[in-house]
Amino acid sequence: MAKRKILLTIQYDGSDYHGWQVQPGSSTVQGQLISAISSLIGKEVSVRGASRTDAGVSALGQLAVFEIDDCPIPTGNFKKAINDRLPDDIVITELKEVPLDFDLIGSVKNKLYRYTIYTGPTRPVLDIKHLWHLPADLDVEAMDKAAKHLVGKHDFKSFASAKDARESSIRTIFRCDVSLSGKRQFLNHGSRTTNHEYIFINVEGDGFLYNMVRNIVGSLVEVGTGRWEESKIKEVLEANDRTAAGPIAPPQGLCLIWIKY
Amino acid sequence: MAKRKILLTIQYDGSDYHGWQVQPGSSTVQGQLISAISSLIGKEVSVRGASRTDAGVSALGQLAVFEIDDCPIPTGNFKKAINDRLPDDIVITELKEVPLDFDLIGSVKNKLYRYTIYTGPTRPVLDIKHLWHLPADLDVEAMDKAAKHLVGKHDFKSFASAKDARESSIRTIFRCDVSLSGKRQFLNHGSRTTNHEYIFINVEGDGFLYNMVRNIVGSLVEVGTGRWEESKIKEVLEANDRTAAGPIAPPQGLCLIWIKY
Repeated sequence: MAKRKILLTIQYDGSDYHGWQVQPGSSTVQGQLISAISSLIGKEVSVRGASRTDAGVSALGQLAVFEIDDCPIPTGNFKKAINDRLPDDIVITELKEVPLDFDLIGSVKNKLYRYTIYTGPTRPVLDIKHLWHLPADLDVEAMDKAAKHLVGKHDFKSFASAKDARESSIRTIFRCDVSLSGKRQFLNHGSRTTNHEYIFINVEGDGFLYNMVRNIVGSLVEVGTGRWEESKIKEVLEANDRTAAGPIAPPQGLCLIWIKY
Repeated sequence: MAKRKILLTIQYDGSDYHGWQVQPGSSTVQGQLISAISSLIGKEVSVRGASRTDAGVSALGQLAVFEIDDCPIPTGNFKKAINDRLPDDIVITELKEVPLDFDLIGSVKNKLYRYTIYTGPTRPVLDIKHLWHLPADLDVEAMDKAAKHLVGKHDFKSFASAKDARESSIRTIFRCDVSLSGKRQFLNHGSRTTNHEYIFINVEGDGFLYNMVRNIVGSLVEVGTGRWEESKIKEVLEANDRTAAGPIAPPQGLCLIWIKY
């Protein structure tokens, strides 16, 4: 068969991985995909992802592409065959052929990241790897108001990690909302469901600098606790200074929800 | 201070433990509690639990007791101090002093176990350690009807594991319900929440034989797939034969919800 380019939509629980990107000697999500697909195809393939999620960060809609040549397996059979070779905490939810000139990174228009904070007093053991347990009384309205300063096209240098090597730090944020989910239905909680509060921070943008969402969340939490005025977010943004932002939020609260292209 | 007996309510994610009960060379929930409390008290304590949950089984309401003597720490300070010494996937939610003659095992009146099955086609990566992923079209009504045969005082020998060494296999089941949760709000799922179905099996009783809930669930699934008639559950129960039940359900779907005394 001729050369084919395959686009994958992937979900993973990042808690047991050293992030997306392949690293020698560490278990990564990209590494698991390369192993699973290469073992199926019978030769080493290269898998390219749309987002480099950090260690501990999960995804419900990561995208990745790989190319194959001279492979007799029909595209329709790939999804199940690859999923059977992946560990339980990684799964391909969609798989399709795309034109050979499809440029994944260049085609991305929009990504949604969600960050989850749990503010109840007792750590929620069944979800602890997928949220930030912050037992504090956060002012969600002030956080949401502060978040609105970030919407639009800005230089986000203040919210980037020093490790970010990309030339431009200008990005467009389409949406940044902080909302409260009064009741979370614990999977096994039933009649003992608590009323303690989950806070969701949704950030949608055309691209993100290294650690940008986690630095935004850490800064919004400074507003939520009252340590910062709501207007300080605007000052931090305008400072164009990597040391101006609040402390970085821990990785396990972050999840890549979807990518549009 | 005088001798005190302390009653704990405990939640844990069992996925990284070799069950509740202490075992040499293995990490167990009881072992973690013994370490945490002993390191706080400064001498080895013995911790007794109300239920011996298996490897991979979680709990939102396990009970346990320990005794201390000559300890200067006030009871009111124990909860936070022990929680600070426990790993993130175990937490004490309630702690109180009980009379020295309080007999935990003898006082238990009622326990609720919940088993969760997910029937959607794609494995749910963020919850995979807390449910049985069974992509099948299960007849929930037939399962619930079959479950009703188990309610009442019966000899449950057919649903016990051969490893169960207890003399009597007579137990009383107060409730056994199979229900469908059409929509589960994934923690990070948001607008992509799927409609795939979660099935909850709630079993409430005065006590359970070794592997009894998992053997009941495995048998109810035989009814759900149509391999068994609904009435076969009654025949299995009446057979008093350990080989009569269906295949055992995997541990990770099971959660001890509460214990009443």
